[in-house]
Amino acid sequence: MDVVTRIERALAHALARAAGPGGPPSLAAALHYAVFPGGARIRPRLCLAVARACGDERPAITDVAAASIELLHCASLAHDDLPCFDDAATRRGRPSLHAAFGTPTALLAGDALIVLAFQTLVRAAELAPDRLAPLVLIVSRATGAPGGIIAGQAWESEREVDLARYQRAKTGALFAAATSAGAVAAGRDPAEWHAFGERLGEAYQVADDIRDVAGEAAEIGKPVGRDRALGRPNAATEFGLDGAARRLVTLVESALDAVPTCPGRQELRTQIRAETAGLLPRTLARPAA
Amino acid sequence: MDVVTRIERALAHALARAAGPGGPPSLAAALHYAVFPGGARIRPRLCLAVARACGDERPAITDVAAASIELLHCASLAHDDLPCFDDAATRRGRPSLHAAFGTPTALLAGDALIVLAFQTLVRAAELAPDRLAPLVLIVSRATGAPGGIIAGQAWESEREVDLARYQRAKTGALFAAATSAGAVAAGRDPAEWHAFGERLGEAYQVADDIRDVAGEAAEIGKPVGRDRALGRPNAATEFGLDGAARRLVTLVESALDAVPTCPGRQELRTQIRAETAGLLPRTLARPAA
Repeated sequence: MDVVTRIERALAHALARAAGPGGPPSLAAALHYAVFPGGARIRPRLCLAVARACGDERPAITDVAAASIELLHCASLAHDDLPCFDDAATRRGRPSLHAAFGTPTALLAGDALIVLAFQTLVRAAELAPDRLAPLVLIVSRATGAPGGIIAGQAWESEREVDLARYQRAKTGALFAAATSAGAVAAGRDPAEWHAFGERLGEAYQVADDIRDVAGEAAEIGKPVGRDRALGRPNAATEFGLDGAARRLVTLVESALDAVPTCPGRQELRTQIRAETAGLLPRTLARPAA
Repeated sequence: MDVVTRIERALAHALARAAGPGGPPSLAAALHYAVFPGGARIRPRLCLAVARACGDERPAITDVAAASIELLHCASLAHDDLPCFDDAATRRGRPSLHAAFGTPTALLAGDALIVLAFQTLVRAAELAPDRLAPLVLIVSRATGAPGGIIAGQAWESEREVDLARYQRAKTGALFAAATSAGAVAAGRDPAEWHAFGERLGEAYQVADDIRDVAGEAAEIGKPVGRDRALGRPNAATEFGLDGAARRLVTLVESALDAVPTCPGRQELRTQIRAETAGLLPRTLARPAA
């Protein structure tokens, strides 16, 4: 089964649980809207890519780990878009969750997605009981306080923010969870895979910052210039567009260097290099790698 | 160690994890404010009471289960009080979380508490690996969609609501998780303990409805008359004060009948009868039990 089918099937399977009979219909509809159709599914694809590089001996565990991480990503988008944060009217080229369902239902859908992410992991215990605890730990650390994506969002309310720490929490943490969980699913040591994911996540965040400054709204499916309007840390504002582009390339190379020894190391590096090649907007000259 | 000490210690232990170094200081402060000092700690005390009735052979697992459930309760209070829901300025006799820390931080603190609830359960796996999966399942079902407390809150946004279904989700679900998790922690079958918790939770919700209509703000630490102001389902509005009081007594008796056979059944029933005796406001005549 190809990667996209595995991910969409795992997500549909998870969602079916939350949309079961007897629940409030608007919440069920909002949960579906928050997850389908997806964006690039970067984190679950990364999780599957790492598991494959490690042999992917338990693909069903890999699939629930990948789904869990994507559900948490969708939850964070639902909450970050709310009026009290980004107040974003659009997401993925259509009305954001709260624009479509109202703030109360959007907030609760985000909550329910967080819960569903952990519920989804239980399936791992049916297949290999010893892998549930590390997966819950990896996913919770990447999501909560003090260093997960929720903490990353909370840094935006602090008066003093360190850009690197903010981006590690806001984006790096869940990427690191994707690589670490992929390793656990395949029976490998997750600690070895943390740095690769974290650096790659920071690279994607820098790319996002660059697009926020230099991109076109139509190209990225959400408004541009939001960071400046909201007074948020942004690598392109802090280092300039060229500085941020150099930082992006450095982070990608550093991530690739951090891929641990494993059967599929070369293939994984080639895949990541190809996928990150398009991170810079066409309007921006790519510095020599 | 007495029950209160066990619960507060387990909560403090969980919170210490989320307030670790390197995180945003306001979020850490908000997390502490949301959990300490607590309310009546009804749910974790119920969890410990059930475990004790079943022998409490693994008290450390009981403690993390109880803490996890209380963290989820605190998360639900943080979110339910937000301006887009109850817009409650006070809670437990002092400013509500968002009144003290602002809406963004209060929302994220609620999110982080949900995550922390699951992270806290991992400790169970260190002590008895087979008990983590049922605990995650019990806690997630009681919290998420379609039948957990988040779904209960979402019913308030629906046009048509069945009062019993709403109250089962809004309050019954987490009480049922408290009794079920207490049973799992002590190595018993959780399914046998579900009905007892669910009915008891409904009784507490009816008592809350009665206080909302007939209570004094100073007595309960939050505003009264909110359900009517917000157009929410309320048993005292639907059945009248006397009708609601009768329903409360029936639910408590039905809960007590549902306590399964176990070594401490009689003691548990006596304790619950004593604790529920004070559920009706003094101003309301207690119908014959």
